Amino acid sequence: MKEITGGVCAPQGFVAGGVHCGIRRNHAKKDLAIVLSQAPCAAAAVYTRNKVYGAPITVTRNHIAGGQARAVICNSGNANTCNHDGVEKAVRTCQMVGEALGIDPRDVIIASTGVIGQPIDLAPIEKGIGMLKDALSPEGALDAAQAIMTTDLKVKQMAVEVEVGGKAVRLGAMAKGSGMIRPNMATMLSFITTDCAISAPMLDKALHQVVEDTYNMVSVDGDTSTNDMVSIMANGLAGNAPIREEGPDFDAFCQGLCLIAAHMARMIAADGEGATKLLECQVSGAPDKGVARGVAKSIVMSSLVKAAMFGADANWGRVLCAIGYTPGEFDIHTIGVTLRSAAGQVEVCRAGFGVPFSEETAKKVLLEKEIQILVDMGQGAASATAWGCDLTYDYVKINGDYRT
Amino acid sequence: MKEITGGVCAPQGFVAGGVHCGIRRNHAKKDLAIVLSQAPCAAAAVYTRNKVYGAPITVTRNHIAGGQARAVICNSGNANTCNHDGVEKAVRTCQMVGEALGIDPRDVIIASTGVIGQPIDLAPIEKGIGMLKDALSPEGALDAAQAIMTTDLKVKQMAVEVEVGGKAVRLGAMAKGSGMIRPNMATMLSFITTDCAISAPMLDKALHQVVEDTYNMVSVDGDTSTNDMVSIMANGLAGNAPIREEGPDFDAFCQGLCLIAAHMARMIAADGEGATKLLECQVSGAPDKGVARGVAKSIVMSSLVKAAMFGADANWGRVLCAIGYTPGEFDIHTIGVTLRSAAGQVEVCRAGFGVPFSEETAKKVLLEKEIQILVDMGQGAASATAWGCDLTYDYVKINGDYRT
Repeated sequence: MKEITGGVCAPQGFVAGGVHCGIRRNHAKKDLAIVLSQAPCAAAAVYTRNKVYGAPITVTRNHIAGGQARAVICNSGNANTCNHDGVEKAVRTCQMVGEALGIDPRDVIIASTGVIGQPIDLAPIEKGIGMLKDALSPEGALDAAQAIMTTDLKVKQMAVEVEVGGKAVRLGAMAKGSGMIRPNMATMLSFITTDCAISAPMLDKALHQVVEDTYNMVSVDGDTSTNDMVSIMANGLAGNAPIREEGPDFDAFCQGLCLIAAHMARMIAADGEGATKLLECQVSGAPDKGVARGVAKSIVMSSLVKAAMFGADANWGRVLCAIGYTPGEFDIHTIGVTLRSAAGQVEVCRAGFGVPFSEETAKKVLLEKEIQILVDMGQGAASATAWGCDLTYDYVKINGDYRT
Repeated sequence: MKEITGGVCAPQGFVAGGVHCGIRRNHAKKDLAIVLSQAPCAAAAVYTRNKVYGAPITVTRNHIAGGQARAVICNSGNANTCNHDGVEKAVRTCQMVGEALGIDPRDVIIASTGVIGQPIDLAPIEKGIGMLKDALSPEGALDAAQAIMTTDLKVKQMAVEVEVGGKAVRLGAMAKGSGMIRPNMATMLSFITTDCAISAPMLDKALHQVVEDTYNMVSVDGDTSTNDMVSIMANGLAGNAPIREEGPDFDAFCQGLCLIAAHMARMIAADGEGATKLLECQVSGAPDKGVARGVAKSIVMSSLVKAAMFGADANWGRVLCAIGYTPGEFDIHTIGVTLRSAAGQVEVCRAGFGVPFSEETAKKVLLEKEIQILVDMGQGAASATAWGCDLTYDYVKINGDYRT
């Protein structure tokens, strides 16, 4: 397995592009992205579990019910959610894509991100689709990744090559964060492409499996968005023997997918709104997987832990407190906590009680940009990792005045 | 029913006091409080549901298992939690109180609030108990209420008089917030006194009933503390016919208790760490009580809603989003949302969709200090109210650097 360049266009047969079409007032910010496969694809997606969900979710769910797709269209600047005419407009957008690119409109995955409850204007989108028709290229991944960003500061894309049944198979992904991110749900927008040959049911299985330990383990602020979606399209151009069941080929594919998904999850957490630090919580020794995930998420979601990390304050009692309110059956009196970063590590809690530690060392550890909170529960073999970020003045600033 | 003065000393036969004994370095901040009843009391309490809980919780639970108590001792500055010798020291503290005040040590309710995981020093507490022995008085309620404060900016106390079976009965309360506050659990420290004659089982029943709709409906930051407790002591000196079962007397008592508890809940929310605004979410028309409470709490707990309120931004999509991720069965398409304050009101959502509204009016409404978010679910008769506060720069500041 190796990292390669090219983002969503790294797999063979994919082109992409991103433009500013005018959904956003800021001309410097691209706001419309398209990804197109030159061959038919198996497709799967995971959606937000919020009962309030955007019109694009309704339409995409319908379109890929049969397990196939050819293209993704995604706009930023407007979520097309809680509007009377949202579904109608999302369907119309897919029709425009179909006409422009010469594909079946039902083979279009559509997604939107931005403000909720403001009617979306189709005029700029129609113009944008026209611009993209000519701009789509194998070099367009970066433009597309930029176009789906909202308050993200960093572009999020990655590609890897894995060997599946003796053939080189490529996977590419792009994602956007960076607020309204919560574990336990599909948590943001991410679009994955691959040239692996794999059946739609196995693709669906791989995606769901991987999402649980990656995208669903990210928290920025505990809010679950109405529009979040992770989709994957597989066009089979790598020429591997098609994966139709579990086995070594499926496992190899899942490994590649997991690597890319975990990397997206980390990038989303690190670029959380206002974040200055990435928090990674590794829980081991848990009685079961559910408790492991729950504890890891409780910690990265705690406002008090997040604020303490911002202040580089080794206030580990807040970590214990967050563990304590995690649902599930477990014992507090076997739990140990260690804080770790590039600057070293410091054990702060053993068997549920505080241990003396050097505040000076702890400060050094916590002044780094990536902090690991290691929790050994000492009562089983299950483990999980969750990613989050610190809570900062800038989070408040960004979200106190988002629409203006 | 009328509001009266005197806090926890308003009911007959209670004395209280608060001093600086040296647990905190700041000499201007009182850090030890005692409340004493001159007659034996029926007693009840509700505790945090956090699996990590302070030594004082263990000791108090044990002490009032029989439904009686005489005194409360509470320190701020150290939570006495996650320390090896915590229980032993809490027991010893109760012994010191018993010796000083001439009561059974097992009749002492003990509570602590402050940093977790730092061994507590008994020397200043012993000194403080000595000081308080002489200082306890019917005028001591304010001192006691001040001594239990941590990052609270405002003293929280109240007293009411209600008629129970033809007799005037008084209830008094004090409370402290103001971070690590989350609904669905005992949520902070609050001590209630009353001169009502009521059996321990009925007192317990009244307290549990009232807590669900008051203290448990407050959120400051979604974190559930390890030390939270609401206790009540009833000494019977009002001379009413003792309440031993449900009926008009019990109802009258519960009404008084509910009024005082709701007022404490509002005060705690309004004085949340860094808060500039009180948020009150009133949910009506819910299919059942669980959904009503859940929706109200989701909204006041949403970081995105809280930050929008700080910025006086009528970003109602975030309210819908928070409703949408509330667990339970309900329909989004009958829900209406109105924002209201002393400056007026503005309907922002009807039947799950946005309605046009004046941004100017909305801004005026949201610039007030107390904001009501009214949610009519239009699908039943259940209702609930939750209280919270905005998310501000100061929350981050306070919690990024709490221990220093």
